[in-house]
Amino acid sequence: MKIQSSKEFKLQREVEYGTPEQNKAVREIVAGIKQEGDAALLRYTERFDGAVLTPAQLRVTPEELEAAYGRVEESFVTAIRAAAVNIRAFHARQKRNSWMDLQPDGTVLGQIIRPLKRVGVYVPGGKAAYPSSVLMNVIPAQIAGVPEIVMVTPPSTGGSEGIDPYILVAAAEAGVHEIYRVGGAQAIAALAFGTESIVPVDKICGPGNIYVALAKREVYGAVDIDSIAGPSEIVVLADDTAEAAYIAADLLSQAEHDEMASAILVTPSQRLAEEVAAEVERQLLTLPRETIARASVENYGAIIVVESLNEGISVVNRLAPEHLEIVVNDPMALTGAIENAGAIFLGPYSSEPVGDYFAGPNHIIPTNGTARFSSPVDVDDFIKKSSLIYYSKEALLRDGAAIMELARREGLEGHARAIEIRLEKEAKGGDGNGEQ
Amino acid sequence: MKIQSSKEFKLQREVEYGTPEQNKAVREIVAGIKQEGDAALLRYTERFDGAVLTPAQLRVTPEELEAAYGRVEESFVTAIRAAAVNIRAFHARQKRNSWMDLQPDGTVLGQIIRPLKRVGVYVPGGKAAYPSSVLMNVIPAQIAGVPEIVMVTPPSTGGSEGIDPYILVAAAEAGVHEIYRVGGAQAIAALAFGTESIVPVDKICGPGNIYVALAKREVYGAVDIDSIAGPSEIVVLADDTAEAAYIAADLLSQAEHDEMASAILVTPSQRLAEEVAAEVERQLLTLPRETIARASVENYGAIIVVESLNEGISVVNRLAPEHLEIVVNDPMALTGAIENAGAIFLGPYSSEPVGDYFAGPNHIIPTNGTARFSSPVDVDDFIKKSSLIYYSKEALLRDGAAIMELARREGLEGHARAIEIRLEKEAKGGDGNGEQ
Repeated sequence: MKIQSSKEFKLQREVEYGTPEQNKAVREIVAGIKQEGDAALLRYTERFDGAVLTPAQLRVTPEELEAAYGRVEESFVTAIRAAAVNIRAFHARQKRNSWMDLQPDGTVLGQIIRPLKRVGVYVPGGKAAYPSSVLMNVIPAQIAGVPEIVMVTPPSTGGSEGIDPYILVAAAEAGVHEIYRVGGAQAIAALAFGTESIVPVDKICGPGNIYVALAKREVYGAVDIDSIAGPSEIVVLADDTAEAAYIAADLLSQAEHDEMASAILVTPSQRLAEEVAAEVERQLLTLPRETIARASVENYGAIIVVESLNEGISVVNRLAPEHLEIVVNDPMALTGAIENAGAIFLGPYSSEPVGDYFAGPNHIIPTNGTARFSSPVDVDDFIKKSSLIYYSKEALLRDGAAIMELARREGLEGHARAIEIRLEKEAKGGDGNGEQ
Repeated sequence: MKIQSSKEFKLQREVEYGTPEQNKAVREIVAGIKQEGDAALLRYTERFDGAVLTPAQLRVTPEELEAAYGRVEESFVTAIRAAAVNIRAFHARQKRNSWMDLQPDGTVLGQIIRPLKRVGVYVPGGKAAYPSSVLMNVIPAQIAGVPEIVMVTPPSTGGSEGIDPYILVAAAEAGVHEIYRVGGAQAIAALAFGTESIVPVDKICGPGNIYVALAKREVYGAVDIDSIAGPSEIVVLADDTAEAAYIAADLLSQAEHDEMASAILVTPSQRLAEEVAAEVERQLLTLPRETIARASVENYGAIIVVESLNEGISVVNRLAPEHLEIVVNDPMALTGAIENAGAIFLGPYSSEPVGDYFAGPNHIIPTNGTARFSSPVDVDDFIKKSSLIYYSKEALLRDGAAIMELARREGLEGHARAIEIRLEKEAKGGDGNGEQ
């Protein structure tokens, strides 16, 4: 890894919007599903995933779900159950209640919190099929109270039944029982607009390839979507007390995700910088995903030597990383100065995979500098709020003149008259409707 | 207004994505601002708003802000102050705290809530310049704790100083003191990417014309944006106890906004349906914005006669209106069944303008059926969350095996090794870093 000063370093990455051909293909697929429903869904599934299905075969059966348990190790089931307990406990703390503010004049104002009714979770196939991501998408929706959570995943992803059994077990453990073996842009369109076999949803979440991302963008508005994730990032802010081998391992755990992943060390310690650079080289040699990780550290990785931890904090805030590890003598003392970071890991034992899999906070976290204004997936992503306004006669008589004043200054006479007609009738002694 | 059964009625509206020419124009303006900064900003301001400014004249001075008070009525200042008090009180109830969960083994998990650092509010010029919208965008950001709130508004909007004085007073009352006289796509680009005179922001909110909407879509990702509002909507669910004249006035207060606004009555009462239809005609005749309101009720308005209030609730949930009035004998008893509505107004005195201007809840509410999955603007729109994870050595030793199990099932050996290297070192008696 290159060792640089903070002045030399600039992380520059562009968001992927797809080629014109990819956009055109996605628009055609979405239009096909809207017009033809299941017929198009089956046709695209054959064309893109090579699976010939009947409508009745789209949905994974309870027997298939049960059978998946026979195809995974007991240790996996135990581990994912323990992770699910922690993820549930953390997200349960995010749940909020509707509230009301009852005023002495009879006015009631409130905010009603309700779960979305139906949510679709996309799970990619192939080597990007991550059981942990199933938990991270499904559990917050469940805690929010979403009554219908449906999963889609492409059928050609290994295993004799066509879906990775680890994904099926994760879904069952998370409590999802409505699963369809469809993927790609066609699955997104089916979730958004519905087909004969699939009831449309209110929101679609979960990662996918470029076609899935473009399809989500295309259907946004008809349904809600989650944000479109960029490549994963870690920044480690460390001082002289940090252990180089730990830091190098954490950087590589990020780099192995993707050739475009970014792993960055920021430190005032020249010694640590050099030791970590050497450790990264040493550990890379035995890493199964060495090629990917090496491309990542060479193109998007950096070791930035700063004058001080304070300068390091400025660099971190500018990068606004998805993951931030603070491995210094007193990490909590620096945390208040961190303005932008999706998830913050403190101290030598809070290695990023602790959060990726197990501790409880969500691992779907804003990438590409968007931690400046967005947040990890949480229960709030699966609720909607409604304002509640009950105005008493007394309150309307008191506030009516001010409301009309404001309406008339905006040239909205109809607004003023909706108030005025009530004030006039009430001045005449009311009309016998509603409250007496 | 047409009286129809619920089977006959279908509200069909498409989202406006602009013409190819409009999209091209907006992309060019955004690119111009990115490349040339102030020079382009001044050039576009001259071209589109006809105002020839120097860089020093972009920002509204404190003296201009003060002078605006001399150009508005005292009654306006009094009314907007009273509204601001109510809006602050309501939004203050939405504010949330960071929290921590401290576990006996030393593990600390938490969610840090922070305000966005800098927010830009777009305020349209001309007849769409609404002082009330300034309060509705600014106050939630203030309550969230956003330290820098900046406003932009085009310079050609009446008044000798080039900006509507009501807008300036609303801004000053809301506490905004950084105001630039720029508008259109160039203002959005300047907020997103910055110029010599304007520091870039983290989020842009506020309504605007099609060029503003397209520019917001174009810069999204570099900054956050609020949702792009569609035409306004009201649905009134009323029974035989409702006063036809009140209902008609409320429908027209919505219809006068925009020819594409939608005003719909849903009622089981044929008598009320007929009386409201007659009242709408009667009230339309004297409405200053009769032409707009008439176009709205003719094209997007409806009176839907249903079999029962229960069927009426189904219709409401299907429409997912921005505004819902429930004017029935016992409105609270029906509220629990309302799944989708942005703001709910209960009883005969809770006329929609009460909420538009004064009661306290936000008047920026999801349109076009998106209340199914989105919410009125609130304090949550101006915060970001970070997860906090501190794992103790004890916790890592306990959970390490499960974390490695999950990482290896996903083929992410580097993740497993980041844990393993720590477990191995600790088994050898630690290495002296961090916690001892």
